[in-house]
Amino acid sequence: MSEESRVLTLREVMAKLGLDAFLISQPESRRYLSGFTGHDHPPMDSAGFLLITESTAFLLTDGRTVEQAEQETTGYEVVRIENRLQDALAQIIPDLALKRFGFEGNHLPYRRYEELKEVVDPNTLLVPTYEVVDELRAIKDEREIEAIEEAVILADAAFDHILGMIEPGQTEQQLAWEIEAFLRTHGAEGISFDPIVASGPNSSRPHHVPSTRPVQVGEPIILDWGARLRGYCSDITRTIVLGEADDQFKRVYNTVLDAQIRAEKRIKTGITGIKADSFARKAIEEAGYGEYFVHSTGHGVGLAIHENPTLRRTSENILRDGMVFSVEPGVYIPGWGGVRIEDLVTLQDGRPVVLTRSPKQLDAVEV
Amino acid sequence: MSEESRVLTLREVMAKLGLDAFLISQPESRRYLSGFTGHDHPPMDSAGFLLITESTAFLLTDGRTVEQAEQETTGYEVVRIENRLQDALAQIIPDLALKRFGFEGNHLPYRRYEELKEVVDPNTLLVPTYEVVDELRAIKDEREIEAIEEAVILADAAFDHILGMIEPGQTEQQLAWEIEAFLRTHGAEGISFDPIVASGPNSSRPHHVPSTRPVQVGEPIILDWGARLRGYCSDITRTIVLGEADDQFKRVYNTVLDAQIRAEKRIKTGITGIKADSFARKAIEEAGYGEYFVHSTGHGVGLAIHENPTLRRTSENILRDGMVFSVEPGVYIPGWGGVRIEDLVTLQDGRPVVLTRSPKQLDAVEV
Repeated sequence: MSEESRVLTLREVMAKLGLDAFLISQPESRRYLSGFTGHDHPPMDSAGFLLITESTAFLLTDGRTVEQAEQETTGYEVVRIENRLQDALAQIIPDLALKRFGFEGNHLPYRRYEELKEVVDPNTLLVPTYEVVDELRAIKDEREIEAIEEAVILADAAFDHILGMIEPGQTEQQLAWEIEAFLRTHGAEGISFDPIVASGPNSSRPHHVPSTRPVQVGEPIILDWGARLRGYCSDITRTIVLGEADDQFKRVYNTVLDAQIRAEKRIKTGITGIKADSFARKAIEEAGYGEYFVHSTGHGVGLAIHENPTLRRTSENILRDGMVFSVEPGVYIPGWGGVRIEDLVTLQDGRPVVLTRSPKQLDAVEV
Repeated sequence: MSEESRVLTLREVMAKLGLDAFLISQPESRRYLSGFTGHDHPPMDSAGFLLITESTAFLLTDGRTVEQAEQETTGYEVVRIENRLQDALAQIIPDLALKRFGFEGNHLPYRRYEELKEVVDPNTLLVPTYEVVDELRAIKDEREIEAIEEAVILADAAFDHILGMIEPGQTEQQLAWEIEAFLRTHGAEGISFDPIVASGPNSSRPHHVPSTRPVQVGEPIILDWGARLRGYCSDITRTIVLGEADDQFKRVYNTVLDAQIRAEKRIKTGITGIKADSFARKAIEEAGYGEYFVHSTGHGVGLAIHENPTLRRTSENILRDGMVFSVEPGVYIPGWGGVRIEDLVTLQDGRPVVLTRSPKQLDAVEV
């Protein structure tokens, strides 16, 4: 689907919401609807905004990126922001005679909202919207799934590389860099997020930042990384052990692996995020580790590393064909360590298709 | 200055502003005031918030980073966000009987503001504040300047490395990766931003994204990069030429270099950002290239790559001892290319001290 047809789809949603204009500020939504790849330094420096109306589309950006915006987009009138966003909007908005002007409530900073209020007509109602473009983005088309698949293949190749080079005594930071350097020199345009390498007791922290701790034989080592390609992310986690796994590791590992595979098999189109979360959660609870599964089962992946849908205990999101999301149960035992196993999954014709190919059987991860 | 004394300073400012509580959402300000290094995925995933009152300090974060927050901070009560920020705030706020509750207007998304409104007492006034912690952060103490100096030394070493390895035919992307890999394997904890390598006509775009274009003899090549160390950024730009520079390059280069050195000499404590901007701008205008200097002269650098002060035509910021900022005039001629030269400068005892040591004389950049 081209960016232009995405804008047409958005206009249909705008009509349903009774919006005659929509200001897009979220960088990923901006890219999704326009193709513009400008870089942001939030919160103060935004590479640009989209203003979509029933019949026109504007891209507002500053002098440094006007040329890039014109080259990368089709169907947009590029408007230069000389100083402040509201000055640029003031050139456009009065002619539009807007009644209901939508904006992205999850993203627009309070100050920009106040500035919008200053610039619109007193008769214009500013309408916060939530997850409008996010919901469109959640359903991927073929071209998007292809990009994600290529990013998954790169992530899989990095795991193969790590299995071939990892040795006791290398630090978490060295291994994290090894993953990143592999991805960046094998075709990735970037990484989805800073790789996590968490060894031994550090692995009980799901968001551990790689340290100078050397990895050791016999302990759990969680590796979590992703590649970015044409803007799209992949996301994978594997837990490995150097040498032979002890009984506790085997017990925890097989619990998580069983839960992960069970979820991947049962997830299907039409169920809620709550239901999707429950498959892995119940399996882990039945094994007696329920209190140690401290996060959700998964999240959507696309232009953003965390996007719709969410697979968690409170998520009313309905899973649909074309969605791409992680399935990543984990068990984290303070003082001992943790195990997490994560694949990317998409739904096609109602059924789950696992995109990640890296091995995850216990004997495959003893290196 | 410890994080605890920073909180004391903030409380003095809060007293002046008549605030009895202050919600900090900006990641860099959160780190500055607490030492907590949690990672954010904006706009939806925040690693945490600070709530500072006259006598207490809370750090609100989710279950994945509670342990890290407790280890990294002193003087904070760490509160776990089970699901939504406002639920966690609802446990704390009622006891405080707040009258004026400040928040960061530049950063807090509209939705979080709406959620705050739901949770505070009807008698509590929510007060948007602008650049409060940002202004504290703008004045660096010795420990901060040391971190920036070390990040500058790393950036300087990367330039030396590039001068030793660059050859015609290498692509912009290869060179950008070479810079990043050098920094990451020589002690940087990260990069300040994705390095810019812009060659030939690409160098007329100040924010060019490195492409597969091979660099060639005789053309301008702009390199712009920075290292991150203990959270603090460096930022440097050099423009080089492979082989001998032609007359046009020499003319443009010497104009920018002259403007850059003039600005570095004249900038001093007590002047405005407007005045600081004017030194380089006037020099470039006098040389006849005024219309091609399309950005500001500089920006503050610290925990964020762009922060206070700003050195531009509209900046009322007053330069102070302890500030650290870039001085980076440039000339960009569409179709031909551009030249930018950037150092980091700090003010001590009223006078400028240039932190960057990389050579910038024309003969030093012909490689």
